[in-house]
Formats: sequence, C-alpha cells, structure tokens
Amino acid sequence: MRNGCFITFEGSDGCGKSTQAKLLAEYLTSMDYEVVLTREPGGTPLAENIRQVILTPTAETLHPMTEILLYAASRAQHVEELIKPALAAGKVVICDRFIDSSLAYQGYGLGRDLQMVSEINLAAVGAVLPDLTIVIDITVEEALERAISRSGQIQDRIESRDLQFHQRVRQGFLELAKDNPRMKVLEASGKSIEQIHSEVINQVQPVISSNKANF
Amino acid sequence: MRNGCFITFEGSDGCGKSTQAKLLAEYLTSMDYEVVLTREPGGTPLAENIRQVILTPTAETLHPMTEILLYAASRAQHVEELIKPALAAGKVVICDRFIDSSLAYQGYGLGRDLQMVSEINLAAVGAVLPDLTIVIDITVEEALERAISRSGQIQDRIESRDLQFHQRVRQGFLELAKDNPRMKVLEASGKSIEQIHSEVINQVQPVISSNKANF
Repeated sequence: MRNGCFITFEGSDGCGKSTQAKLLAEYLTSMDYEVVLTREPGGTPLAENIRQVILTPTAETLHPMTEILLYAASRAQHVEELIKPALAAGKVVICDRFIDSSLAYQGYGLGRDLQMVSEINLAAVGAVLPDLTIVIDITVEEALERAISRSGQIQDRIESRDLQFHQRVRQGFLELAKDNPRMKVLEASGKSIEQIHSEVINQVQPVISSNKANF
Repeated sequence: MRNGCFITFEGSDGCGKSTQAKLLAEYLTSMDYEVVLTREPGGTPLAENIRQVILTPTAETLHPMTEILLYAASRAQHVEELIKPALAAGKVVICDRFIDSSLAYQGYGLGRDLQMVSEINLAAVGAVLPDLTIVIDITVEEALERAISRSGQIQDRIESRDLQFHQRVRQGFLELAKDNPRMKVLEASGKSIEQIHSEVINQVQPVISSNKANF
C-alpha cells in the first residue's frame, strides 16, 4: 500500500525547522522527487480550523486534555486527508512537526502521562509514522529569541508559556530521540542555515535511497 | 471533593431529550436545587468553537478518527471548565448528551473499535462520570421525522447520515444500557412530553435522594 517517504522536522519554536523543511523540499524537488511540504497543527482546511481553536488566545483556559485531543484530532485529519494519499502516490511528504511534538509539548512540557499521550496519538495516526525525523536542537534562549524576533512579540498561547516549560520540551525531544532510531538530532547552535541544510541532506540521503525502489 | 449530582440525557436526534433535560432542570430548580443545564458538544465558548468545527458541513470529509477526537476534546474542556466546578460546588448538572453519545455514534454508528473510543473518552473525562443517564428511546423513523420537522430540513453533518447509521446508534444506546447500571432506558414512543417527564422524575428521585447528604 505505502510507497512514498515520510520525513518530519521537530524541535522548539524558533529552532529553524520550518526553514529547513522548506529548503529540503526545494532540494528534493530539484532532484525530481514529487514533494508535498506540509505542517502541523494544520495541513488541510479542516485541520487549520482546529489549529485556530488551539492557538487563538481566549479568556477561557485551554485545559491540557483538550489541547492533547485537539492536536490529535488535527493530526488524524491531516494523515487521512493529505499524508496517506500522498505517500500512496509515491510522494515524499515533508512535515513541519508531527507526533513527537505532542509527546514533547504535552507529555514532557505539560507533564501529562506520556503513555496516555502516546496511545491517543497512535490511535490518531494509525500506522502512519515517519521514516525519518530530524530534531533540530538549539538552546531554549536562542529559540525564544528567534521566535520573538520573527514577529516582534510572543505569538500565541503555546509560545507564551514560561522558560521551564520550553526547557522540558527541549529535553523531551532529546529523550525521545534516545529511544527511537528514526529520530536524528542535529546540533544547530551557532551554525548557519546552509550548514544545517547540508547536514539535513546527509541524514535524508540514505533514507530516500533505501526507499528508492518505490519511486 | 465531589458533592453534586450529575445527570445526563442520551438518545437519537429528535428523541426529545433536550426538551426533557430542560423540563427536569425547571422541576429541580423549583425544588430549590441549584441546577446547571448544559449540552454536548459545546457547553463553554471554547467547546462551542470545537462544536462548530464538527457540525459545519465542508467540502472536506470529516474523518471518523478526527470526529472521535474532536468530540473527546470538546468533552474534556466541558468537564474541566464547567462540570467539575459545578459538581464541586454541590450543584445538579444536567447534560444533554455525554460520553455515551460518542460510544453510540462513533463506536456503534461509525463502526469504530468500541474499546478505543471508550479509552479516549475515559481519558477525556477523567473520573467524571454521570450518577444517572436517561436514554430516551423512540424509533429511528419517529426521531428523524421530529428532527426534520424541527428545522424544516436535515440540519447538520451528523443528522444527514443514512437510516442504517441511525439504526445502529439506537441499538448502540440499548446495548450500552444493558451493561451499565447508571443507564435507564425510557420507552418514549407514542407518549406525551408530560408522561415522559413524570417517568424522568421517577428515575431521578432516588438518585437525588441518595446524594441528599451532599446538598
């Protein structure tokens, strides 16, 4: 059934993963792969509507279980509507954030039971897991500086959480990568966009090649 | 911690449960109980936003897993924001639809794994389950006729599903009630609103009385 190749980018807000996802998409397109570049939360109009519910600040507290389930709902829609069909058509899907963001942000960051977050998200994605996940790791201070300078202000409900929260999220990604061979950590502190892009390609190359028969 | 009394109404669209929930709320208020009347999906502004995502028809298919997770998200928010605080304050909470609607509609109706739907929803509600659930049972034909005559047309994405779907939902409620002592089925076909109201009160009385010490 599944033919394509599924690559996800993970890391803290402001780590540079969206830039790297875009550069990788351009590179693979130039190599004649059919590429779908997408992001979470969101990725389809309906999933974008859910994203709006999550990220728009309101007077009412967004409770942790609500947040966990909304991200999972948005992901389920994204997988069924866009990712699965693209993979079945033999495309390379590059996604900015996926299941590991829920584990890092809601599990490690919000301190919710990791097993529970994991089970809900595995139900959401079915059998669709990435072939390769690139975690771009920089210090929380650098990441927040970049996230703020991008917009001139703290942007949304998630970004406005405290420094300890973001420390736990960063640590979460590193812990997850230890147990999971599909996850590769790229140390990005002090490196240029071009340097990181070339390290990304080094990671992607063998995964794409091993899937080559499918293209 | 918990002091109040939690009563839910369940059944097919058009079975009359919203009318009965409202009548019960008026009756208990007249008996000097502090009553909170609410409904699902919805119940708080943020949960209402989620309700809109679920019910507004769009060009994009709402996939079953997305639907399951959105209902659960809306429920988690409703429980934390409104139901738990009201129960802790010793109030009677009357809710039009709750967890059993997800089991009947998504489990039995859409044919998704009941265990999975149940686990996601138990995670969503935590320990907050009803003290009494009244299932108002009428034939699917009667229910749909009433749902349509209410608005002059089929209303939303859920109501527009086929007759077999609604048959499975009705059967689902009856199956759930067999295994669950908190669920009481009221046969409503051919009965007047007043008759059903008086049967509802008969069911509620002993539950409220056994919780009496708490009021």
